[in-house]
Amino acid sequence: MRSERSERSPERVEGRVEGRVERYKVAVLTISDKCSKGQREDKSGAAVQELLKQVPWEVVKYEIIPDEPDMIKERLIYYSDNLKVGLVLTNGGTGFTARDLTPEATREVIEREVPGIPEAMRVECLKITKRAMLSRAIAGIRGRTLIINLPGSTKGAKESLEVILDTLPHGLDMILEKEH
Amino acid sequence: MRSERSERSPERVEGRVEGRVERYKVAVLTISDKCSKGQREDKSGAAVQELLKQVPWEVVKYEIIPDEPDMIKERLIYYSDNLKVGLVLTNGGTGFTARDLTPEATREVIEREVPGIPEAMRVECLKITKRAMLSRAIAGIRGRTLIINLPGSTKGAKESLEVILDTLPHGLDMILEKEH
Amino acid sequence: MRSERSERSPERVEGRVEGRVERYKVAVLTISDKCSKGQREDKSGAAVQELLKQVPWEVVKYEIIPDEPDMIKERLIYYSDNLKVGLVLTNGGTGFTARDLTPEATREVIEREVPGIPEAMRVECLKITKRAMLSRAIAGIRGRTLIINLPGSTKGAKESLEVILDTLPHGLDMILEKEH
Repeated sequence: MRSERSERSPERVEGRVEGRVERYKVAVLTISDKCSKGQREDKSGAAVQELLKQVPWEVVKYEIIPDEPDMIKERLIYYSDNLKVGLVLTNGGTGFTARDLTPEATREVIEREVPGIPEAMRVECLKITKRAMLSRAIAGIRGRTLIINLPGSTKGAKESLEVILDTLPHGLDMILEKEH
Repeated sequence: MRSERSERSPERVEGRVEGRVERYKVAVLTISDKCSKGQREDKSGAAVQELLKQVPWEVVKYEIIPDEPDMIKERLIYYSDNLKVGLVLTNGGTGFTARDLTPEATREVIEREVPGIPEAMRVECLKITKRAMLSRAIAGIRGRTLIINLPGSTKGAKESLEVILDTLPHGLDMILEKEH
Repeated sequence: MRSERSERSPERVEGRVEGRVERYKVAVLTISDKCSKGQREDKSGAAVQELLKQVPWEVVKYEIIPDEPDMIKERLIYYSDNLKVGLVLTNGGTGFTARDLTPEATREVIEREVPGIPEAMRVECLKITKRAMLSRAIAGIRGRTLIINLPGSTKGAKESLEVILDTLPHGLDMILEKEH
């Protein structure tokens, strides 16, 4: 599927500059009651980290927490303000159950919303499954950190990340004012 | 058009489980000054109810009110908190005139926004008419009720609902935590 | 590309009524630190004005200001409330750098958001470049004025405006309650 997309839009790869030396720091946060209690394996978190190997980024933090808004906010703030990672990827908590509050927690800590990233993930994933419209994921910038919600299903998280992966380096460079 | 979509995405029908016994309760709210005064026939409301016959849902309430934000909010709260319907479909009041305030009234009563539903409606309807971009419709969850704005034109309401109809059961099941 | 789009959706031209007499008033606001200091030529502002010649609108105001939220807000309010233009097009300040604050300033002055316009711009431009997802542009209505953010790059501003240009007259007519 990736190769098919690459044919459709050859500019997809331009973000991955050959020989880029700096390695971006990424935090992966899985948000799931069941995974945090060890009642379910975190396949989504594993899939996200596997995909990140395709880009020159380093996962410096990977944690699993329950669907608790205060814990989500605390972690997102810690990754942004203390760890100073360039990118935070959350997965889980973007659905419709009463405990799905990841977008609400995320909105409270971001300073500037980036609507085009979740839009692009949904519009592309909609071509694979209509259920993509049910993801309530958002994205935004806090300080110099880009925070992106991915859906909780392994398939959804993977497919969503694939949509944006090659375009993210340009976004991160813009935040760091490396080019614009 | 429906059959063409079904071919493209066979998973569209999986939400309609064969033999599902519970019938979802739906409220249809037409928001239009002219219709509420009887100066215009509510063709959109009729079209929406006709479409709902395709899914195993029961329209338990259908009302027509003028474009008054306080009345809109009061009705949405009543349907959610008192009638406890699973789904509310509004039609009308999503345009640009000074009286078009349905999305603003809706935003005030929902607790969690569902951006992907109006996005999907617009992006699919954009393939039919560029005017789809002018719908300001939103969607969101209040308690255990999903509230969705549809555009006021009969064509727009119908085409928008067709985009999401077969995916809604999964969303409603998620709210009721029947599967996830 | 325009001709190709016209073939795909013949209704695109219906907004441009033959013999329409009233000429819409438009303000174009370029928001760029570099352009405001004369360190960079405002090619985007020029491209936007060139495109507007295709529609029966008159650019009554064109200004260049730095990425200062208070100045942006003041200008948008002045164009809407004093100049009473039907349309304001901003370009610039929709990216990820710390100074990119056009959407935030715009959100503070609009009364009703129009999410479908930036969505349509991004979803169509995504077919040209994946970087379109990084535009944080928004659109909304203040009084009887439609305010739309365009991205700052000449290519991005032009391609985004081309997506919506022929549909805007219907939106402006709705605001003025000329038809609906």
